[in-house]
Amino acid sequence: MEALLRQSRSMCPFLHKTSPATLRSLSTTTTAARPEVSPGGGSMSNLQVLARRCPIMGKALAVQSARNGNHALAGAFGGARAYHSRVNRAKLHTTAPKEAQAVDIENLRDKQAPVPFPPAALKSATAKPANVAAPATSQASKFDYEAFYHNELDKKHKDKSYRYFNNINRLAKEFPRAHKESKEDKVTVWCSNDYLGMGRNPHVLKTMHETLDNYGAGAGGTRNISGHNQHAVALEETVAKLHAKEAALVFSSCYVANDATLATLGSKLPNCVILSDSLNHASMIQGIRHSGANKMVFKHNDVADLEAKLQSIPQDYPKIIAFESVYSMCGSIGPIEEICDLAEKYGAITFLDEVHAVGMYGPHGAGVAEHLDFEAHKAGKPQGTIQDRVDIITGTLGKAYGCVGGYIAGSTKLVDTIRSLAPGFIFTTSLPPATMAGAKAAIEYQTNYQGDRRLQQLHTRAVKDALNEKDIPVIPNPSHIVPVLVGNAEVARKASDLLLEDWGIYVQAINYPTVPVGQERLRITPTPGHIREYRDHLVEAVDTVWKQLGIKRTSEWAAEGGFIGVGETGKAEAAPLWTNEQLGLDNVIQEMKAGQGATGVLEAVLEQERKATAQAVAAAA
Amino acid sequence: MEALLRQSRSMCPFLHKTSPATLRSLSTTTTAARPEVSPGGGSMSNLQVLARRCPIMGKALAVQSARNGNHALAGAFGGARAYHSRVNRAKLHTTAPKEAQAVDIENLRDKQAPVPFPPAALKSATAKPANVAAPATSQASKFDYEAFYHNELDKKHKDKSYRYFNNINRLAKEFPRAHKESKEDKVTVWCSNDYLGMGRNPHVLKTMHETLDNYGAGAGGTRNISGHNQHAVALEETVAKLHAKEAALVFSSCYVANDATLATLGSKLPNCVILSDSLNHASMIQGIRHSGANKMVFKHNDVADLEAKLQSIPQDYPKIIAFESVYSMCGSIGPIEEICDLAEKYGAITFLDEVHAVGMYGPHGAGVAEHLDFEAHKAGKPQGTIQDRVDIITGTLGKAYGCVGGYIAGSTKLVDTIRSLAPGFIFTTSLPPATMAGAKAAIEYQTNYQGDRRLQQLHTRAVKDALNEKDIPVIPNPSHIVPVLVGNAEVARKASDLLLEDWGIYVQAINYPTVPVGQERLRITPTPGHIREYRDHLVEAVDTVWKQLGIKRTSEWAAEGGFIGVGETGKAEAAPLWTNEQLGLDNVIQEMKAGQGATGVLEAVLEQERKATAQAVAAAA
Repeated sequence: MEALLRQSRSMCPFLHKTSPATLRSLSTTTTAARPEVSPGGGSMSNLQVLARRCPIMGKALAVQSARNGNHALAGAFGGARAYHSRVNRAKLHTTAPKEAQAVDIENLRDKQAPVPFPPAALKSATAKPANVAAPATSQASKFDYEAFYHNELDKKHKDKSYRYFNNINRLAKEFPRAHKESKEDKVTVWCSNDYLGMGRNPHVLKTMHETLDNYGAGAGGTRNISGHNQHAVALEETVAKLHAKEAALVFSSCYVANDATLATLGSKLPNCVILSDSLNHASMIQGIRHSGANKMVFKHNDVADLEAKLQSIPQDYPKIIAFESVYSMCGSIGPIEEICDLAEKYGAITFLDEVHAVGMYGPHGAGVAEHLDFEAHKAGKPQGTIQDRVDIITGTLGKAYGCVGGYIAGSTKLVDTIRSLAPGFIFTTSLPPATMAGAKAAIEYQTNYQGDRRLQQLHTRAVKDALNEKDIPVIPNPSHIVPVLVGNAEVARKASDLLLEDWGIYVQAINYPTVPVGQERLRITPTPGHIREYRDHLVEAVDTVWKQLGIKRTSEWAAEGGFIGVGETGKAEAAPLWTNEQLGLDNVIQEMKAGQGATGVLEAVLEQERKATAQAVAAAA
Repeated sequence: MEALLRQSRSMCPFLHKTSPATLRSLSTTTTAARPEVSPGGGSMSNLQVLARRCPIMGKALAVQSARNGNHALAGAFGGARAYHSRVNRAKLHTTAPKEAQAVDIENLRDKQAPVPFPPAALKSATAKPANVAAPATSQASKFDYEAFYHNELDKKHKDKSYRYFNNINRLAKEFPRAHKESKEDKVTVWCSNDYLGMGRNPHVLKTMHETLDNYGAGAGGTRNISGHNQHAVALEETVAKLHAKEAALVFSSCYVANDATLATLGSKLPNCVILSDSLNHASMIQGIRHSGANKMVFKHNDVADLEAKLQSIPQDYPKIIAFESVYSMCGSIGPIEEICDLAEKYGAITFLDEVHAVGMYGPHGAGVAEHLDFEAHKAGKPQGTIQDRVDIITGTLGKAYGCVGGYIAGSTKLVDTIRSLAPGFIFTTSLPPATMAGAKAAIEYQTNYQGDRRLQQLHTRAVKDALNEKDIPVIPNPSHIVPVLVGNAEVARKASDLLLEDWGIYVQAINYPTVPVGQERLRITPTPGHIREYRDHLVEAVDTVWKQLGIKRTSEWAAEGGFIGVGETGKAEAAPLWTNEQLGLDNVIQEMKAGQGATGVLEAVLEQERKATAQAVAAAA
């Protein structure tokens, strides 16, 4: 109890602020507890009454009490026996009468909590309510775990959020093709996050093969115990260099990187407040929750709302603004510069998730933050850029870089702090040497080569244009994501199933809880490999399925006033982040001096690209 | 506030138990708050006084208040303005006087908390205390993040828990050898968790090479969105079969598996209590913390203590007993059967972490639970065995199976529930196809081959015998772990450094917080590859370093009465879990009918093994 009290004192605002004298007085005065608060009706000190009401202290006391077995208490507080006997029935059956004895009640109060397991706190309809008034001999039934699981799954089925996984085997030599369960049953994958096809890149695969042969399949330990090696060192140096940061740290995944970093910072920084964009990824939401820090959710990409919240926090309190560059389910892009401005104004640090941007934006593929100062970074001058102002950048090795794993990049001391304190980094086996070597090769390849991300952007534009031409409701955005609005979970799944079964096109339906109910969608992700034939096939298929299922077109959404950007007139069309100039389209347009529309130019460029690629392949063969 | 109240009501014992009438009465009566509790000195309802003292409600109210901006409150509660102006200074500067107006205080109380950011809750010495009494115009300084990181790292340096990673590159073709930073600088690794050398197993590597070529470097998505494939299906079937369970689920790591599964079950099961062995791994501790469930820590491997705690919990409450089979830092083994008995008696489910046992115990390498019914499992009759009675088994693919990743195995419905609800599973990129295929090959190989784990056990016995002969303090245990007691963080690190620098032997020092202060150790893990030459070299090196640094011998610990098993007389020596019979030593002993001691027999067997291996290699070449 002593240790518990000391510990509680440091974290509990009540204990911390109340003087020892007052505490002593509270602990020696008693209140006849109201029956509904104290089932046993025993007398207890005012301090115990207060403590019992506190969710944290109440729990701690309950645990402490349970550890001590309760029978002394049951004997001393005669009236409480009916309640406590439920807790410790076995012993009372044989020895309870003999246990009634003189005890030091004052001392006892320091050791025991009056109500170890308040019976009324049941959370779920599946559990039967505890029988509070039951006599000591009643047989409460054991908890039915399988029924509980069944009930949880049933809820998922009923609200249509139960997930059916599709067996999709992406073929490295036929990207973006895959086979289903049978090797003969082939489909085109249109929803992978292997955004640039790096999963089949020959440089990456060659590096991985060599590393496998030389250094084996696994790392063999945590980073601290035999799992640290030259591959980890080199990969972290490469990541730090990519983002022009002092240091970087690699994790099992970016889910773990986000979770571990936010949980560690939020719990260690005194009085930390984390400001979180309302569309942030689950990994950040979990990390913030796990930190126990104060959390404020600001409206998606709304810097005015963010500023209002920053203003409400004392200036000297540490604050973390957690947000993303590309939001993966709608393709919107965070206002990174404005958020950096606010962070500086209010003394906050910025935590930027570039998971759906690394490899694909910026002259070196470092992400949107790099892209915003395209020319400066191209010229190798990162100082003072927006990316330079972001405190913590997190990214993945499992999407555009085609492998698996995640990372953070930031100052040397920040990275060393997370390295030294985050259990999710410390106590887990490190990534295999081959994975780390492959990821490093992928980053380096994309740092030096613009072609893949340029082609990805060109293909994205072409897909969006073609779908829009067919009145298919693409949710407008400036990124490489092509979200197509369906608006109903069952219909979205049916559309996905029809595309797969009738057309050999794999586009997963995105339903609640990944997106809000009513905003269900198909999420299409073009890659450099999605050439014209695939695109034409996709557009025809989507158009047919839309007819078949009677899914609303853009014009129909517009007739209703529009929805989440679809059919909303008056709103400026989201200009692509990659400009015509950055994509090299301006020159082409000038050269052609043509009466052709933008689509015509795009097609012409893509045709050129295609011929060039074919020639390169022929030359290499 | 309405939603907050509803939510709080369901989880807060105080709100839940207090009648609406009482709550109303509390909210309309006021108390002049004591100055040390209410810096602003404003009048507030008794309900607010209580709510502010609650760590959960207090935080929620603070966030809510900050969201709403506070200026109305500041205007209404004149006396509180000096405090609140700190929070929302900018607005007050221009508009505060005009904001004083008649407001519905009753209504306001439902919307606002009186103290959004209590200034006294500072947790760290690095942060300057907030200047509570400062006038509205004071300039509180911004938080110094880099100084905070510096201070955190400084603490680690001072208490000697700062970790220095060793650059160790394990060579697949020279197992258990590795090179340091330079390729020429070679060492023998004696602390890897690649316990059976599967990281360089030709079957595993061949499978991985083929899968890399056919299916690429990464999975390309989450399991739900293009990352589910035949490799995941086959691996999960293999894991389920290994443990004779209905189903299995694969995660990024077993850290994530433990964390996600316990967090999900603990938060979803109503009133769940998790009983956790005091030596449980960090991943379980985090999972339990993240669940928010009641937690009871029972003494390591103490079934009497566990039973006392189980008795204290109402029978109909769901309970999870979380424990390990082999505890990796001391090598002790959990009393699985007794815990299953208790679980059945008290209506609990068992959560068994077999991370340091899978591949190495049991006739098929399924772990200790399988080992305990060796003959039944060998005969293919898992029904009714101890393993069969364990509800949830978790394991890793990154240690004895040589790859990376983790898993759970259990009933179909349990696994489907975790698959459907755990964010740590749902929202992360799946393991690469090659990793999953390699892990499956490793499990299958070890399911069908006893040789590696038999040789590992023989080598472990030989190392323990040889160290004990030199009076080196091996912490006794029945498993394959060889923990050597040092008892001081600096000395342990120094010993590890000397072994590496002078002897080319890599054994990481294990310091706090991985083990308690005073129990620092070297943790040696023999593998099938640690043949006699390596062992003799190790023993000579350790003996020399012990002399050099004056580290206590077993006899010295014994003279002091012994410590954590070392030099403790009277205690029965921990018999190895692998019996002589299971290792095939009984036959040899009989055949030899010799006057030789056990060590002599062991050496003879190892010599036989060695000749057999050499012949097999020669025959294959």
